[in-house]
Amino acid sequence: MSLTFFTPGPAQLYPTFEQHLKAFVENQLGSISHRSQQYRDLHKFTVDQLRTLLDVPDSHAILFLGSASEAWERILFSTVELESFHLVNGSFSKKFYDYSNALNKYAHKFEKPMGEGFTASEIEVPEYAELIATTHNETSSGVQMPVAEIHKLKQRHPEKFIAVDMVSSAPYPELDYNLVDTAFFSVQKAFGLPAGLGVWIVSERCLKKAEYIRNQYSIGAHNDLPTLWKNAQNNETPATPNVMGIYLLGKVAEDFNRIGVSNIRKETEHKAELLYKFIEQAPGFSLFVKDKAIRSQTVIVADTISLSADIIKQIKTKGMVIGSGYGANKSTQLRIANFPATSVEETERLIYELGKL
Amino acid sequence: MSLTFFTPGPAQLYPTFEQHLKAFVENQLGSISHRSQQYRDLHKFTVDQLRTLLDVPDSHAILFLGSASEAWERILFSTVELESFHLVNGSFSKKFYDYSNALNKYAHKFEKPMGEGFTASEIEVPEYAELIATTHNETSSGVQMPVAEIHKLKQRHPEKFIAVDMVSSAPYPELDYNLVDTAFFSVQKAFGLPAGLGVWIVSERCLKKAEYIRNQYSIGAHNDLPTLWKNAQNNETPATPNVMGIYLLGKVAEDFNRIGVSNIRKETEHKAELLYKFIEQAPGFSLFVKDKAIRSQTVIVADTISLSADIIKQIKTKGMVIGSGYGANKSTQLRIANFPATSVEETERLIYELGKL
Repeated sequence: MSLTFFTPGPAQLYPTFEQHLKAFVENQLGSISHRSQQYRDLHKFTVDQLRTLLDVPDSHAILFLGSASEAWERILFSTVELESFHLVNGSFSKKFYDYSNALNKYAHKFEKPMGEGFTASEIEVPEYAELIATTHNETSSGVQMPVAEIHKLKQRHPEKFIAVDMVSSAPYPELDYNLVDTAFFSVQKAFGLPAGLGVWIVSERCLKKAEYIRNQYSIGAHNDLPTLWKNAQNNETPATPNVMGIYLLGKVAEDFNRIGVSNIRKETEHKAELLYKFIEQAPGFSLFVKDKAIRSQTVIVADTISLSADIIKQIKTKGMVIGSGYGANKSTQLRIANFPATSVEETERLIYELGKL
Repeated sequence: MSLTFFTPGPAQLYPTFEQHLKAFVENQLGSISHRSQQYRDLHKFTVDQLRTLLDVPDSHAILFLGSASEAWERILFSTVELESFHLVNGSFSKKFYDYSNALNKYAHKFEKPMGEGFTASEIEVPEYAELIATTHNETSSGVQMPVAEIHKLKQRHPEKFIAVDMVSSAPYPELDYNLVDTAFFSVQKAFGLPAGLGVWIVSERCLKKAEYIRNQYSIGAHNDLPTLWKNAQNNETPATPNVMGIYLLGKVAEDFNRIGVSNIRKETEHKAELLYKFIEQAPGFSLFVKDKAIRSQTVIVADTISLSADIIKQIKTKGMVIGSGYGANKSTQLRIANFPATSVEETERLIYELGKL
């Protein structure tokens, strides 16, 4: 039986995935040299499609990494000489903070319990913090930081760098890259592709800082920003990249552009509304994130009365897979991914089956 | 027209690639959670197949990275507190050395021109070097360091770590992991898979050193050895891995095991002999690597009288792709990959067509 995955990543593959994969294989793109014009054209196609989709200006490069977690490290190496500051409200924002400590930076944090979020006005950024690390979508708790709050935070601290983790929400957040220095995501979430590729959007201002830091401290050796940037000017990567992942990402981004990103965002909001309305009303379920303004549109979290593992098991017999809670909430919560790969009809079917339990 | 790739990576895909890819898609493995038992079984399968294929003892973990270049960085972070030592005879051994400098280590080197190799007896290892970095197969020049010389080098310096870059030769070299602390390769070379995955074989002794260094210096934050190791004990990875790449690698390694690694090695040597014999005798071609003992079995390099680009172009009309020289030798050399994905018959056909030029 073919399953529909409502899991927050790896997730349901985008409906066009198989056809793009077939074209990749038929055209023998797995064998082409990563120093050939054929590769450079492929690379440029993906960058151009992402640039259109996410409205990324030429001041920012779009770079490829092995995973989004790698972006945490490369951002810290590139923008933080001594001190970083992190908004922590779940496991993934916490990991960004942990990475900074592991690199022997002085990492400050403003921490809140899972399920809570941040507004710009309440945040006091430490004076010497060079980077403000935000998480647009905390995959572990289903909390989003409204884009307007991220922009406001930067406007209050224009001299500092701001980074946006949009791993499990891109292309949903409409970021203004005049205000966002760097952002990153991975392809196995809302882009509906197999894992193994991270995308790093990063400004020339970050590059300058990386070059400055390099005079004093190591900024790493592998995929360091100046080398990545230089190669990207030529539509190449320093090491042999995940050509298949880059190709598939370009084709799915093209599909998204054909639909129009605003339509994708609207459908995301529509499906999220259906799911939240159901959770609010259905006996046995309740909303984990109390404040509507910070509820994630892409990872919907519900508290459950019965064991979530039982619900997951029953829903699987109906051909659908949903995620458990994260960490300590594993057995008492469900996480339902709401990515473009799952349609309104499939979402309605999931709600119907959950309602029958 | 379907092409046969004799390029040194990305290279010809292994004949069973498409069937394994089809199974991956049909079983929806691109959507499974990387924290599920299903993933752990898949991960373990690949590790077990590689362990058998390369005869890796339990003292060594088999870990997954985004690329083999990432392994350079992680090995340096893990085994070098202050000083490393590099045998440099081409572009890739040089990059390992460059990475050490970029991490602000004190990097020593013993350098020879491209086309030359090393014997253990001529190597003087600096007293305080903690790591000896060797390159089994220098992809840029077609020089191999005989395995016996690598082993001898370690026997002379048992207290130091020895690393073996076998990016473009594994599973050909029959390394003795009682003498090799760490080795690494990528999948787009002799394993005949799309790029995007590096494999890092590393001993518990390296782990202990990484834990020791961590008390003093940063050993990086992403894919640091202690975290990778801990996750590997549970057949997991710290970040979401390239599940597709890991699956395909396990299946191709299983195919190799079915054939038997000694048969694969014998066929590699047979095909290499055919190619070298042709280059030696054919007018218009000559051997770049003069010393037979260090001629690569997997990347065969020929000097050409005519422009190599012309030869490459003509051979492409016959349905075969061969590589140009590397860097400064781009226009005067050919590099012909000799990996398991290209058969004896295909090799003979290439030789036949080259002979007709």
